[in-house]
Amino acid sequence: MTMKRITLSHGSGGKLMHDLIKGLFVKNFGNPFLNKLGDSTLIHTSVERFAYTTDSYVINPIFFPGGDIGKLSICGTVNDLSVSGARPKYISCGMIVEEGFSYNELEEITLSMKAACKKAGVSIVTGDFKVVEKGAADKIFINTSGIGEVFKEARLSVDYIRPGDKVIVSGTIGDHGAAVLLAREELKFSSRLLSDCAPINGLVSSVICKDIKFIRDPTRGGLATTLNEISMESSYNIGIDESQIPIKEPVKALCEILGLEPLYMANEGKIVLIVSAKSASKVLGRMKKHILGRDSKIIGEVETRRDRKVYLKTKAGGTRILDMLTGEQLPRIC
Amino acid sequence: MTMKRITLSHGSGGKLMHDLIKGLFVKNFGNPFLNKLGDSTLIHTSVERFAYTTDSYVINPIFFPGGDIGKLSICGTVNDLSVSGARPKYISCGMIVEEGFSYNELEEITLSMKAACKKAGVSIVTGDFKVVEKGAADKIFINTSGIGEVFKEARLSVDYIRPGDKVIVSGTIGDHGAAVLLAREELKFSSRLLSDCAPINGLVSSVICKDIKFIRDPTRGGLATTLNEISMESSYNIGIDESQIPIKEPVKALCEILGLEPLYMANEGKIVLIVSAKSASKVLGRMKKHILGRDSKIIGEVETRRDRKVYLKTKAGGTRILDMLTGEQLPRIC
Repeated sequence: MTMKRITLSHGSGGKLMHDLIKGLFVKNFGNPFLNKLGDSTLIHTSVERFAYTTDSYVINPIFFPGGDIGKLSICGTVNDLSVSGARPKYISCGMIVEEGFSYNELEEITLSMKAACKKAGVSIVTGDFKVVEKGAADKIFINTSGIGEVFKEARLSVDYIRPGDKVIVSGTIGDHGAAVLLAREELKFSSRLLSDCAPINGLVSSVICKDIKFIRDPTRGGLATTLNEISMESSYNIGIDESQIPIKEPVKALCEILGLEPLYMANEGKIVLIVSAKSASKVLGRMKKHILGRDSKIIGEVETRRDRKVYLKTKAGGTRILDMLTGEQLPRIC
Repeated sequence: MTMKRITLSHGSGGKLMHDLIKGLFVKNFGNPFLNKLGDSTLIHTSVERFAYTTDSYVINPIFFPGGDIGKLSICGTVNDLSVSGARPKYISCGMIVEEGFSYNELEEITLSMKAACKKAGVSIVTGDFKVVEKGAADKIFINTSGIGEVFKEARLSVDYIRPGDKVIVSGTIGDHGAAVLLAREELKFSSRLLSDCAPINGLVSSVICKDIKFIRDPTRGGLATTLNEISMESSYNIGIDESQIPIKEPVKALCEILGLEPLYMANEGKIVLIVSAKSASKVLGRMKKHILGRDSKIIGEVETRRDRKVYLKTKAGGTRILDMLTGEQLPRIC
């Protein structure tokens, strides 16, 4: 059996590229927008506010427990739109592939993107495919941008954050970072660790309301970095209770062995919410009803002091500053 | 003097990345959308139809006569929106940078993007920055996606193409491909060859009207490939007169030396239009008034036969089929 491989000609703009685009991408992503294969896609809209985002995915390895670069590239962008209070609708996809890359793996990634799109209810409406010489890129990089329609009920801004607001996290922390690390290091580890990679738009749309002040997904840099961003942008300190932060036992164990801190580990299917004190338990209750929010927890609150710092109340009973990630904990995690 | 270089930490989601984004990108691209640094950007719109596109730029070398990867990444996406009959408005930017890349070069590319945005009247409203290990990417890749507001007058579709419609090209062909080739091969060549890399939205908006049936920019694969795409999609044959195709003398000379065909060479500031016969000279006249359309020419017309082929009437007096590009003429041309 011959192994089909991607050649430079697949990215040249000529016949081979057209055949690949029709035979692989249009076949799998097919929808009335994409099928036209125009220089851009024409979209009709009736909403007045939309959200727009972009992310490049360079994860290594490209296949990891719980997902692959294709699934990640859809979920990541869907999630960025979701945390902005928007219903994700349209996705663009730009692939950069290394010459010699396996056609079968490209197909597997494509099918994985297709499945993630279906799950999230979004369509890939425009795309681009480039091939670079062997050695000029590591296997495959995928950029997705996305457009979402902003929910009428969404009123999300750091400007609305006030002391006393509660901090809710939608589930266990560090799963994605731990799973990728495990896959990369080929560590023998008895427990099965899966990335949490998932589209969280369903969870967001099930809870979105005016009492939610702000949402962010703690990806690169993890929960600690996200909380620091919120603190810096709102100017209020945030106090977090370590004992309330949900972390899976195998993630804890892996981090202990390797001397890593789960609070800085990337997540790809989690959200952090800032919710008014009076509505926090109501929002928490709704979150727990969604399959991706079952392990939601109130982990802390916004404080009155404004030195833009995050404080962690440790299990040992002390309090320490939880700083932003400095340096690189784990490169190419997404 | 120390040479500042990009490290993996600049892409980690932590403090160094924040500092780089604020100190370089927000500083230069700054606008009310981008400055918020949210997971996505919220955009208000009053139009009902918009165009959406994406492209990844992997050009080698990243600096070439007439431009660089930064200018190209803005012009290319602006042009894709323009040929769809839209006024480009919002751009997303996803950069993938190789560890060790020079900060000064990154800054130069950033300033070049800033200048191109200004010229085209667009804003970079959302972005992403990733760093991969040395050797995992070749210097820098840039993805831009873009959103444009569709002109009310625009009525562009291959479905409107009819026999007798004229084919107009907005200027000399092959300049970008030739300039990049020259830069790459470090050929000694007496004539100065510059890429035509430019935003063509001004040219398009100065001519857009209902008599223009279709517009496309002949990038990868060149004029020949674009004409073949139009022929295939409309089902009509297209006849082109070689003697009417504008080509700069140095481009011709370079192609002759290297045995390349200028009709397959990439362009980054040109458009091909299909215009009704009755309005062709009016549209041509308007194009010639725009600085980027001065050398516009009617080069052929849509024929009645429908075997989806492009015929070239050669200067020697014969006629031959002008096929799509097969194989790779010049990799990483954009």
